[in-house]
Amino acid sequence: MRSERGLLIVLSGPSGVGKGTVRKALFNQEDIQFQYSVSATTRNPREGEVNGVDYFFKMREEFERMIANNELLEWAEFVGNYYGTPIAYVEQTLQQGKDVFLEIEVQGALQVKKAFPEGVFIFLAPPSLSELKSRIVGRGTETEDVIHNRLTVAKEEIEMMDAYDYVVENDEVQLACDRIKAIVVGEHCRRERVAKYYKQMTEVE
Amino acid sequence: MRSERGLLIVLSGPSGVGKGTVRKALFNQEDIQFQYSVSATTRNPREGEVNGVDYFFKMREEFERMIANNELLEWAEFVGNYYGTPIAYVEQTLQQGKDVFLEIEVQGALQVKKAFPEGVFIFLAPPSLSELKSRIVGRGTETEDVIHNRLTVAKEEIEMMDAYDYVVENDEVQLACDRIKAIVVGEHCRRERVAKYYKQMTEVE
Repeated sequence: MRSERGLLIVLSGPSGVGKGTVRKALFNQEDIQFQYSVSATTRNPREGEVNGVDYFFKMREEFERMIANNELLEWAEFVGNYYGTPIAYVEQTLQQGKDVFLEIEVQGALQVKKAFPEGVFIFLAPPSLSELKSRIVGRGTETEDVIHNRLTVAKEEIEMMDAYDYVVENDEVQLACDRIKAIVVGEHCRRERVAKYYKQMTEVE
Repeated sequence: MRSERGLLIVLSGPSGVGKGTVRKALFNQEDIQFQYSVSATTRNPREGEVNGVDYFFKMREEFERMIANNELLEWAEFVGNYYGTPIAYVEQTLQQGKDVFLEIEVQGALQVKKAFPEGVFIFLAPPSLSELKSRIVGRGTETEDVIHNRLTVAKEEIEMMDAYDYVVENDEVQLACDRIKAIVVGEHCRRERVAKYYKQMTEVE
């Protein structure tokens, strides 16, 4: 009952929330049906990192050629290095009916959303957000300034969520993984997708 | 991170698809967090059926009073007997922040959708739907008439789906249960619900 084209699953969230940790834990599980899309970067490999597994390591000129040729689904520059998602792997995998999983920065996720509005966009939220209330109405051990700053950051994070379909709290890595897996199962059951597939079958007539 | 109000989950589908079997299997599992909403009926209890567990058994006049007083979320008459969902239990349970699960006929589901458009509407689909294609393009052992009838029924079933959020194929009861559980987990992570909850917290200021 799978729709013929795979789903594009995008995991993103504020920096430091633990996107990489959740992604690694997810792909260490046996029942994962989706393919991880390896990013390209111009930064140097760290110890133990393998080309084509952790990243596709590229020279600067090579990366800039990919940008010029529209070969990247999204890209950004951080601290003097490029990072991006090669579009070819994503497209091929989706066409084979397999789901593709991206773990990228918020900026990149917004670029992907423009190209693939039908993707499944998951925002990984810091547990500090739901602890907010107890902190604010709590024992008053924090100064007004600390509370005010925390609220400002929280409001920014909540605004970031607007472009996403789901919010998963990273309170515990395994729980976050379970929620992401459930979201993907549920998305495969969404009526728009399934009914479209059934309709195509009845049009055989 | 739960939204404060529970979710209303509605399982429905064409008659004979196995809604009751799936519902029973679901509530036999230990990790079910939602509450089953017991229907009211005027039909006689069958052997082993317990009042308040399987149904609330009512006299005809009692049921008609409930209809007149708008105490039912949905109701219908089948073969001379009334069936319906008392609204009070549903409302109380949702307000306690617990999810409520209804298993009802397609007609009833459309009534519930009018009153609770924010509910999660799951259509249980017969596996015959996805076997359709292989039957049609198969070895030609079926007559044109049989194929035509099957296609007409399939088109009706696909049209019924339009009012639903999800379609779960009942190919295997346990698989159908797993999909329903995943859908509920995913729905609790939907951005609209979670962001609303977070926003309320930051408005404490």
